[in-house]
Amino acid sequence: MNDSTAHAHHRRTMSKFLKLAHKFNSFYLNGLQKKECRAFIVDGIQVGLVRSTVTIELSRYPNVFIVNPNSVTLNPAFRDYDERSANIESVLKEMKEKKLFLTLKGWRDEVLTHASFIDITISDLFSLFGICNYGVDINGYVNHPQKGLCIWLQQRSLTKQTWPGKWDNMVAGGLSVGNSVIHTAYKEGEEEASLTPDLMKNLQSAGTVSFFYESERGLFPDTEFVFDLELPPDFVPRNQDNEVEKFELVTASETVNRILSPDFKTTSCPVIIDFLIRHGIINPENVTAGLKLEKPGHFVLEPRFPELVELLHVPLQSLYKKCDNLLTENGLSKAE
Amino acid sequence: MNDSTAHAHHRRTMSKFLKLAHKFNSFYLNGLQKKECRAFIVDGIQVGLVRSTVTIELSRYPNVFIVNPNSVTLNPAFRDYDERSANIESVLKEMKEKKLFLTLKGWRDEVLTHASFIDITISDLFSLFGICNYGVDINGYVNHPQKGLCIWLQQRSLTKQTWPGKWDNMVAGGLSVGNSVIHTAYKEGEEEASLTPDLMKNLQSAGTVSFFYESERGLFPDTEFVFDLELPPDFVPRNQDNEVEKFELVTASETVNRILSPDFKTTSCPVIIDFLIRHGIINPENVTAGLKLEKPGHFVLEPRFPELVELLHVPLQSLYKKCDNLLTENGLSKAE
Repeated sequence: MNDSTAHAHHRRTMSKFLKLAHKFNSFYLNGLQKKECRAFIVDGIQVGLVRSTVTIELSRYPNVFIVNPNSVTLNPAFRDYDERSANIESVLKEMKEKKLFLTLKGWRDEVLTHASFIDITISDLFSLFGICNYGVDINGYVNHPQKGLCIWLQQRSLTKQTWPGKWDNMVAGGLSVGNSVIHTAYKEGEEEASLTPDLMKNLQSAGTVSFFYESERGLFPDTEFVFDLELPPDFVPRNQDNEVEKFELVTASETVNRILSPDFKTTSCPVIIDFLIRHGIINPENVTAGLKLEKPGHFVLEPRFPELVELLHVPLQSLYKKCDNLLTENGLSKAE
Repeated sequence: MNDSTAHAHHRRTMSKFLKLAHKFNSFYLNGLQKKECRAFIVDGIQVGLVRSTVTIELSRYPNVFIVNPNSVTLNPAFRDYDERSANIESVLKEMKEKKLFLTLKGWRDEVLTHASFIDITISDLFSLFGICNYGVDINGYVNHPQKGLCIWLQQRSLTKQTWPGKWDNMVAGGLSVGNSVIHTAYKEGEEEASLTPDLMKNLQSAGTVSFFYESERGLFPDTEFVFDLELPPDFVPRNQDNEVEKFELVTASETVNRILSPDFKTTSCPVIIDFLIRHGIINPENVTAGLKLEKPGHFVLEPRFPELVELLHVPLQSLYKKCDNLLTENGLSKAE
């Protein structure tokens, strides 16, 4: 590859990452500006956004939802958690029976207490109301003597309701009230990949990613707490909850190919890209397939590299005003 | 420390980090919303923001600057780089003689070609026009057998124009046209800390930070390309350009104390906080002085942790529309 070919290749690969970052931020970059959604208000605080297709259905239940030009408010007459939950649940069950929304199809009556901070008990329904999801991810990696940095990926079970058969991070799971971030990491690590407490001694917190995706299933503001875990070369993850088809240890460059392919769960890409950036695989000079830069100063500055990093950390926590108050006062921290 | 004391201490420390993040994002979080600044337009593209105090002075030069209600435009009649530069320079020299702005006091006739992408040749003046600065930082660290993770900090020279005598990152420098990010890292590493190419073999790209600070000196949108460099325990940085008072190797917990003190350069804190987060020192469970979490699941979820991470990556690259086009078409990448 000569200089200009390498340069062109570099540009193309960067465009692919940015294209992907625009894809998993489809709502942040497009939908949000259109201002077609209404703020979803619970107890005087905006906790989400509601699309017009959903608003139309909610407006059929004026005793539960008050629809105004810019907002949908959960009836403030509901006094407490139980009353709010019961009312929302009955509406959603009716909507499910009518087969109104794709996202309700997968509703498994699985109560995730996480959702309690907005007084809705079913996390699958977050996307109908554009409520921020919080999750935990573990990047399991191996410093292989021959192959260099390698990453464990999982293929999701073919029977999963969402993204069946797609490639995904080694371990990922939703946060629930009463469980701290680190506790969730341990729990999911054990269930999804048989990570023993002994292996987990190497677990290292590495930050968060935030992005805002939209699909036909709804709105997906998402913040993931990210952990790195170096694993011994002879360890093989073993799934215990039947949610995984298989695991595969892939090289850094193969990981790049994998996330750029349509076979990877779109909303799991931010965590992997963040990992690859933090470990120098995707960098300002070299965004090609895991190759280390050999001639310093050889390539041009990549002005779109900071743009990519910024798209892994979009300002979700300040998007819904007073959202912090909500978390602090009404939910997650209180539950301990 | 019992549970509730630890918890309270944890909250207080987190508030300190967030307070700091709000400080180095003073313009992003406050100034920007006030909409008191005018867009600074060069060649049809917004490249900055101008405060009203500056606009008043610029309006005295209607042949150079066209002031409108929402914008200040550099006279589009200027045909090229040389004509634009000469005109701006003469205005700024006159303003300097009048001692109008603090930031002009430090103007050292130092031509930083970096600035050429907006056709102004003096980077010290970026803050008058709110033009984004790009820099490179190297976090030099040691995995000390006894003290654990330690970080090299520098105290800035007492004679520096800006932030004299303040504590700062080991190596930091502005990006200039014709020099790639990696080339700048090598150049600054050598000048500021005598980092040899042999030591630099361990250099690892680790992402970027973006923030938008405002002070009495002006507006400071800033994107830093961040590198980590593990150093041998016996290495001691030695400055070659007389810009450093001294270097000190400090533990992770002492680094936390240092950045929370008023003796640290405010605009260098984002790079250090990002480093401490990526290395697990500041994490969702434990934001206290470098202590590793001993009992998993013991502390509450820290909902403000993602907020802190987001404030290290504010969306500067999309703040001035078409800024990307500017970089790609008119400057940095073209110049190599």
